[in-house]
Amino acid sequence: MLHPLRVHIESVSKLTDEEFEYILSHFTAVKYKKHNMLVREGDLVKHEYFVLKGCLRSYITHPDTGKEFTYSFAAENWWISEREAFTKGVPAATAIECLEDCELLALSHDNRMKLGRELWKYEHYVAEKGALGYVAIQKRMQLMLMGSPKERFENFVEQYPQLYSRISKTIIASYLGVSRETISRLYRK
Amino acid sequence: MLHPLRVHIESVSKLTDEEFEYILSHFTAVKYKKHNMLVREGDLVKHEYFVLKGCLRSYITHPDTGKEFTYSFAAENWWISEREAFTKGVPAATAIECLEDCELLALSHDNRMKLGRELWKYEHYVAEKGALGYVAIQKRMQLMLMGSPKERFENFVEQYPQLYSRISKTIIASYLGVSRETISRLYRK
Repeated sequence: MLHPLRVHIESVSKLTDEEFEYILSHFTAVKYKKHNMLVREGDLVKHEYFVLKGCLRSYITHPDTGKEFTYSFAAENWWISEREAFTKGVPAATAIECLEDCELLALSHDNRMKLGRELWKYEHYVAEKGALGYVAIQKRMQLMLMGSPKERFENFVEQYPQLYSRISKTIIASYLGVSRETISRLYRK
Repeated sequence: MLHPLRVHIESVSKLTDEEFEYILSHFTAVKYKKHNMLVREGDLVKHEYFVLKGCLRSYITHPDTGKEFTYSFAAENWWISEREAFTKGVPAATAIECLEDCELLALSHDNRMKLGRELWKYEHYVAEKGALGYVAIQKRMQLMLMGSPKERFENFVEQYPQLYSRISKTIIASYLGVSRETISRLYRK
């Protein structure tokens, strides 16, 4: 069976066995327990992560009310990091929490840049992955602007069937920008 | 004075004069009048555009109510396209309208791919630009989730001082997801 990271890269750029082994040698396997924090607010973020197993959420805390707002999830075969901190080298403005026990492949910023310089295919993969990630978050933005709570919930279930049974209703409510009560009502239907 | 496209690319990758002239030779200058549509819903989108002059908005129309929701703007030195249609080759789900007379540089999808293959620096520019674009839309998403109408408006004015005086209050309201009346009240302060 092909390695899940290889499957992901090859959705953009076909690799030889040697190329994939070389790429993989730049990653480090890491494990986190449920409720562990992958990134805390204020951290410098030196790594991005490919998820082999488990589920995580990124969230931001309102400075006045302390209320948490979930703005993205990651599960198997997704990438996650605190993108602004990782890309610009500034302290993290948001946090990432493991919602389950997680097995991740960590890639440092230095190694991300090295792989891109050495292998055109890797740089192209990053560029295409970036374009598709932008499209995904843009569609979510459109749904937040014009979708009713019911439409947002139905779209979430349809788009992420593997997630909605694994994640608490409170957290899904904070992701969809609707109340916990609304989510419970929609679940019952 | 350096060409604005060169300034934009060189924020990521320094170029020689020859490299920039070669890149620029793949672009076509186009002009559109105020209220012209750059992209209509259902179009196949073969180009992305760098804005030399003018201001545009991307919007989506609610299928039932016909109400328009603005989800992004572009002005001088920004890129714009219908990202999903351009990247995946599917029909456009959203539209792009010129809010002023516009002068744009159009790059076809074929030429975008050709430049990336031939010049590593161009592929790297696209990858980095994608990461920064993702961060920008993610910050907007965070503000939509947790910001009050007042916070959203103040953030918009602070982030885009060059835009808020050029764009109608109705369109800004549809971008911030707040009512036209709220925007007028905030403008008066």
